[in-house]
Amino acid sequence: VTAMLALFTDDLFHDGHAKTAHGVLRYGTREVAAVIDTRHAGKRADQVVPFCARDVPIVGSVADAAALGASTMLIGVAPSGGKLSPGWRRAVHEAMAAGMDVEAGLHTVLGEDPELAEAAARLGVVLRDLRASPAGLDVPRGPAARAPGVSVVHTVGSDCAIGKMSVVLELDRAARERGRRSVFVATGQTGIAISGWGIAVDHVISDYIAGAAERLVDQGAERGDLLFVEGQGSLLHPAYSGVTLGLLHGSLPDVLVLAHQAGRTAIEGYAEVPLPPLADVVELYEAALRPIRPGRVGAIALNTVLLDEAGARAAIERAQAETGLVADDVVRFGPDRVLDAVLAALP
Amino acid sequence: VTAMLALFTDDLFHDGHAKTAHGVLRYGTREVAAVIDTRHAGKRADQVVPFCARDVPIVGSVADAAALGASTMLIGVAPSGGKLSPGWRRAVHEAMAAGMDVEAGLHTVLGEDPELAEAAARLGVVLRDLRASPAGLDVPRGPAARAPGVSVVHTVGSDCAIGKMSVVLELDRAARERGRRSVFVATGQTGIAISGWGIAVDHVISDYIAGAAERLVDQGAERGDLLFVEGQGSLLHPAYSGVTLGLLHGSLPDVLVLAHQAGRTAIEGYAEVPLPPLADVVELYEAALRPIRPGRVGAIALNTVLLDEAGARAAIERAQAETGLVADDVVRFGPDRVLDAVLAALP
Repeated sequence: VTAMLALFTDDLFHDGHAKTAHGVLRYGTREVAAVIDTRHAGKRADQVVPFCARDVPIVGSVADAAALGASTMLIGVAPSGGKLSPGWRRAVHEAMAAGMDVEAGLHTVLGEDPELAEAAARLGVVLRDLRASPAGLDVPRGPAARAPGVSVVHTVGSDCAIGKMSVVLELDRAARERGRRSVFVATGQTGIAISGWGIAVDHVISDYIAGAAERLVDQGAERGDLLFVEGQGSLLHPAYSGVTLGLLHGSLPDVLVLAHQAGRTAIEGYAEVPLPPLADVVELYEAALRPIRPGRVGAIALNTVLLDEAGARAAIERAQAETGLVADDVVRFGPDRVLDAVLAALP
Repeated sequence: VTAMLALFTDDLFHDGHAKTAHGVLRYGTREVAAVIDTRHAGKRADQVVPFCARDVPIVGSVADAAALGASTMLIGVAPSGGKLSPGWRRAVHEAMAAGMDVEAGLHTVLGEDPELAEAAARLGVVLRDLRASPAGLDVPRGPAARAPGVSVVHTVGSDCAIGKMSVVLELDRAARERGRRSVFVATGQTGIAISGWGIAVDHVISDYIAGAAERLVDQGAERGDLLFVEGQGSLLHPAYSGVTLGLLHGSLPDVLVLAHQAGRTAIEGYAEVPLPPLADVVELYEAALRPIRPGRVGAIALNTVLLDEAGARAAIERAQAETGLVADDVVRFGPDRVLDAVLAALP
């Protein structure tokens, strides 16, 4: 029997931080029995998240999800800081008591938590930590040792949780449909939940961020020759910029795709950090990459989920005018224009 | 009885990577019985490292250091990647067999290595890991929550292992001599070995780099109002740039001091990464800081150890002409000119 997933989102299924749940619904191949969310219980997933969700029921409790056949609960929110809150801990206990395995991509390692590990052993269920670091990480060999014959495309962002992973998943899928040997390279827990391999670079020892990214490119190069490496954080983000730069310098992309949420004016959670004009963000990323191995922004991936269709079209026009680059919402309007621009920008 | 240190440097005591040994000799207050180094055995420390060493003997074996009264062996090299090599592992076993405690700041956690932990327990000696992360790290509160009434000075570099820590130690000492409530804030294993507190930010989970740096500023603010925060890595370094940016965005310095080794033209170990002109490096750091909380480079700290005195003076003149900033070698010629420039640049 295949595991049936329940996606636990607390009361945040509508929120960008529930990106793990959204990603598994939109891009994953595993069956989903239900979303568990107290705020949205009684609705269907695609009523709440039209662009990201399959038509699965939203229930209000672990017991309801179990009744629908769920055998594994996946924590579907990537909270800032990555901790297991007391309320979520209760949900994990309830799931285990209902006989479910539990998967999570938190910094709090479920399997290393004595109370949870004891309960899992007693109840005969499995705890899986998607964010755990692989053994043997080290510093990178560096730009001179970049895997030959491979092109690397990498998403970067003006902020977090605005769709960098969705963009590379869409581009990868479209490239494969065009017959390219394209590979999605997961760098975070959601991507790993979707693709089944990768490294959560934000959980590795900080000296090894770039080394982990280089290893992912090496592993991707064994699977294909056009790699779409998922981005993390933002160079503008007060908490996560280090991860972003390490990932950039370890993956050494040929072409960047800059993700931006139309209308966002400041870093989420840090209102004191305003977003610079989009053209400045393009220059910030190219300047950060230039000393190590130059690469350029090839297109803008605009997230227009907060706008109606006319507003989205206008925002895309503005982004193009501001940057001189092709811009589009690859989830809403399809990835072809951005993919064309990316492929044209490859060296 | 106080512990007497033996500083183990393998055969690298002359090398910049032996910075932990150099720092403890120059700035530490603990007694040092000997340096253990096979290449330089028979000389005195200040014959090999004139600017950084006390006059202590260099011996060729752990047994010789024990005969001089050493009771704790400190691994005095910070190798790229931070691993315990097989040769060093043998030295750790020899030290334990001679009844010594062992201190290290490697990513390889001695206390978590089953073989070493078993030997230490059997021999009744202690393994101390200076790089271990504190509990309860998280993302930073951010620039709006910056500790009030405190000025932060931070060293950054064009490359690693060129004296960023020495610069802040010299500046801190000089500021205290001028009656300022100045504090050295250690961010790496050597600094922690010297000052007795701090966090090795390159060993924390990468999502928490900036949070760890913010915590260090908070802790420094309890000790004084002029903080000299040790820098790590370089924005130009293919392996460590992520740590550098996270530390920059977490500590949010008012003034940066840019450390550079005169004559260096490429990143050490990555010859394919040339160093840009010094003025461009100044701009790179200010541009990285600008979106989060602006700060500016107040002076250049030039490491002239490879030059004679006339060459050093000329290199300092050149650096000043190139950047329009005060430049000096604070170890060779004293910290006063750089400190004056830093204090004048504080807001």
